[in-house]
Amino acid sequence: MTKRTRSKTTRAATTLAKDSHERQLDQQRLRRVVVENVHPQVDGGRFPIKRVAGETLTVSADIHADGHDLLAAVVLYRRTGATEWREVPMTPIGNDRWQGTFPVEAIGRYDYTVEGWIDRFASWRYELSKKAGAGQDVASELLEGSALIRELQELHATAAGIVQESGALLGDTAAAADVRTEAALSDALQREMPGYPDRRHATRFEPVLQVVVERERARFGAWYEMFPRSAGTDPSRSATFNEAALRLPYVRSMGFDVLYLPPIHPIGRSFRKGPNNTLTPGPGDPGSPWAIGSEEGGHTAVEPGLGTIEDFDRFVAAAQDHGLEIALDIAFQASPDHPYVREHPEWFRHRPDGTIKYAENPPKKYQDIYPINFDSLAWQELWRELKQIFEFWIGHGVKIFRVDNPHTKPYRFWEWAIGEITQQHPDTIFLSEAFTRPKVMRYLAKSGFSQSYSYFTWRTTKAELTEYFTELTQTDVREYMRPNLFANTPDILHAYLQDGGRAAFQARLVLAATLGASYG
Amino acid sequence: MTKRTRSKTTRAATTLAKDSHERQLDQQRLRRVVVENVHPQVDGGRFPIKRVAGETLTVSADIHADGHDLLAAVVLYRRTGATEWREVPMTPIGNDRWQGTFPVEAIGRYDYTVEGWIDRFASWRYELSKKAGAGQDVASELLEGSALIRELQELHATAAGIVQESGALLGDTAAAADVRTEAALSDALQREMPGYPDRRHATRFEPVLQVVVERERARFGAWYEMFPRSAGTDPSRSATFNEAALRLPYVRSMGFDVLYLPPIHPIGRSFRKGPNNTLTPGPGDPGSPWAIGSEEGGHTAVEPGLGTIEDFDRFVAAAQDHGLEIALDIAFQASPDHPYVREHPEWFRHRPDGTIKYAENPPKKYQDIYPINFDSLAWQELWRELKQIFEFWIGHGVKIFRVDNPHTKPYRFWEWAIGEITQQHPDTIFLSEAFTRPKVMRYLAKSGFSQSYSYFTWRTTKAELTEYFTELTQTDVREYMRPNLFANTPDILHAYLQDGGRAAFQARLVLAATLGASYG
Repeated sequence: MTKRTRSKTTRAATTLAKDSHERQLDQQRLRRVVVENVHPQVDGGRFPIKRVAGETLTVSADIHADGHDLLAAVVLYRRTGATEWREVPMTPIGNDRWQGTFPVEAIGRYDYTVEGWIDRFASWRYELSKKAGAGQDVASELLEGSALIRELQELHATAAGIVQESGALLGDTAAAADVRTEAALSDALQREMPGYPDRRHATRFEPVLQVVVERERARFGAWYEMFPRSAGTDPSRSATFNEAALRLPYVRSMGFDVLYLPPIHPIGRSFRKGPNNTLTPGPGDPGSPWAIGSEEGGHTAVEPGLGTIEDFDRFVAAAQDHGLEIALDIAFQASPDHPYVREHPEWFRHRPDGTIKYAENPPKKYQDIYPINFDSLAWQELWRELKQIFEFWIGHGVKIFRVDNPHTKPYRFWEWAIGEITQQHPDTIFLSEAFTRPKVMRYLAKSGFSQSYSYFTWRTTKAELTEYFTELTQTDVREYMRPNLFANTPDILHAYLQDGGRAAFQARLVLAATLGASYG
Repeated sequence: MTKRTRSKTTRAATTLAKDSHERQLDQQRLRRVVVENVHPQVDGGRFPIKRVAGETLTVSADIHADGHDLLAAVVLYRRTGATEWREVPMTPIGNDRWQGTFPVEAIGRYDYTVEGWIDRFASWRYELSKKAGAGQDVASELLEGSALIRELQELHATAAGIVQESGALLGDTAAAADVRTEAALSDALQREMPGYPDRRHATRFEPVLQVVVERERARFGAWYEMFPRSAGTDPSRSATFNEAALRLPYVRSMGFDVLYLPPIHPIGRSFRKGPNNTLTPGPGDPGSPWAIGSEEGGHTAVEPGLGTIEDFDRFVAAAQDHGLEIALDIAFQASPDHPYVREHPEWFRHRPDGTIKYAENPPKKYQDIYPINFDSLAWQELWRELKQIFEFWIGHGVKIFRVDNPHTKPYRFWEWAIGEITQQHPDTIFLSEAFTRPKVMRYLAKSGFSQSYSYFTWRTTKAELTEYFTELTQTDVREYMRPNLFANTPDILHAYLQDGGRAAFQARLVLAATLGASYG
């Protein structure tokens, strides 16, 4: 087979097979710049990263191309929903890594990505400078430069004086070579030419990435947990909102920002729990606030013992006057007396005999609580109802929610509900009570929670704390999960605290307040 | 706003707005299992990983769901192009990480992915065993189990005897409870039920990932570089293939597997280089073999001084007889006398005065070499021609190619050419001569090269070697880039070797042969 024969075959093949693969290749081949390993991102852009308003976002990427051309790159960004991109230049920081920084000023979502291209002028200028520096003849290079500058100028349909003049001078063979070379390499032209890029074959990183920008309290704050019924002055009976309000100056005086209330809703009577999880409450025993719902109402009602919804509104306002925000506990479960049980039995799981299943963690039984069946055939109505619970309390001035046991509800529900709510109310903050497996905790954070309880409570030795906070602060986890460090909770009291007395609480408080930006 | 009012609003909204977002959610919400962080993969599946035939591929993933259900998962795999998937079970290895292993037996490409689902039977059985173990009444659970087993049996439209019997027995309230419980928890049923999964809402990881399976020589081999014209017995003249063949037993006796030949094509006469890069060759100076092409032909011709194409064929066969494979150097560049220059001037870059540009690395000039313009308007014809050069030599028994300076040609070209060639000839092996920036070297490996020259040549201290081989063998780089460790090359001789004498060469040989699976 001779060379000539093969050439003929090639030509025939080219004419015949201009297939779709080749068309695709034709579109891609001129995009010679590779943009890869863009950071930060979560799961290839499946989830947004998180920032708070007023911060900056530094985006870095590996950017390179075949050959020796010089490159240029920008970070593109915009408010999600906007059509126009803004951009900031990226600079190389070594080993083909580039970075650029933009400010995230407003709460809401931003899109961002990276675009890189061959810097034709800079590449040409660099080669010219090396040849001219070595004293080589650059007559041909000057003509090429003239043509290049004119082409870039035409691309932009306008040009500064120096660009026009240089384009003409470089092509003027009647002028002296050294004058033309000097003009070609002038600082003035070098400063101007980045404004005339050829980005027709730029490579834009896909997919577009997103950052959720929240208000500062999503990242930073001191939380105080208060059972309002225990915040009175008479230990023989439950206190009211009005009485608990008297404690607000005390809480604020300790420097707290957020006052977190466990469920404040009517408590069921059926299978009401007495002290220490017994099923034999005395007549005055109030029951667990997490057994939500009675004849008096469900998740949008207030326990009559605490007061009325108007009392609650006044409590929220009083807290605000003292510089405290109220965080409400949202626990999606119902006591057997909850209105949902009667009105929507289809939202619960049933036994073969038709009765509704209560919560269990075998062999433990929680007869006072019915879990909600998120897979119910009537799931749309159920999910919307649950979302509206948040919206109801947002309507009453609550913008922070501590979500109870989110890991026993579908991830998709949270992603949907938090997404919908924050679209309408981007200043809403969600804290995930997920003391569960690390990857589940992280996935809930990815799905939209602003903050997560962490394993801080169980990390007590120096080695444990070092390892855990290295993970939280030095790995990509930091891009989407913000720990809220609780020293203890009503149902978690580490042996260190049980045995360590006041000094142990003090040590844990200082650790909590200094290892993270949010603590409780 | 009362609870009742809100419920009515909700119903109306549900009826009205069954929008596309909600339909999408409906499809997703039952896929409660998350499959993420699948390993190995390169850039989210953009590029295949690499293995050699006969190896196994262990795939791991984070697999979890909300709640406490037990899960099951498999690795799905198939030859690329096949429609049916095969599968191997995955097992949990702790902290919600799962893994499974499948064999890659044949060269070519395989698809693989991971699928996980709720194991309904195992979840039910686990709860039953805990309740029964605690002595609780399980009458209701047995009825649920009966219904579940029957449902799973119907899903599969067939069932083994024990499954049918257990389904019936568990639902038979006339039978003794302890007999039914024992049947429900029996090992026999537990062994059988994984054959009856409910995978209707299984989560399959996307995108499908790929592994390129090559023959063993892609991973493992000892390379010997020989200039055939220098492999004769008479130092006063260039040797021929027939003479060089006499050296084959010697090369093989040293344990080499691959005999690598620098370009064997006719060498251009224009601007032929003399010794030490001078432009004044003597009449007998052969010129650089990388100045490819003369009146006698180009990349598919043999330098007449070495012999004919038939001589080459005999040389390849002789090498094969001695257990040696020939690797050819492919350098896509042309001497000014190459037939391409005359036949396809459009494949080269031109100066404003119409002359063709020679290669330069300012201030160095390579007047004997014209680089090829891959961005030529006639790129389709050019790319096909270049691909056919490989195919020509494959037709002459060569299956290993050492590609010269691949980083000065478009990445897309390599991805396309190697992809097309290995589809037809999956036993072809490509070695990338990219001593360039690390990310460029890696991107060429991702784009399809079987092996890459590495920075081994420049890593001489213990710390340098430890750091570099940790990167090559302990990071994800190992999934797609295989180093071929050359102690030196015709144009790279590290100061360590220049100054170290024979002992230095011995030390580097031992390091090269033991730090990697391929060396030269």
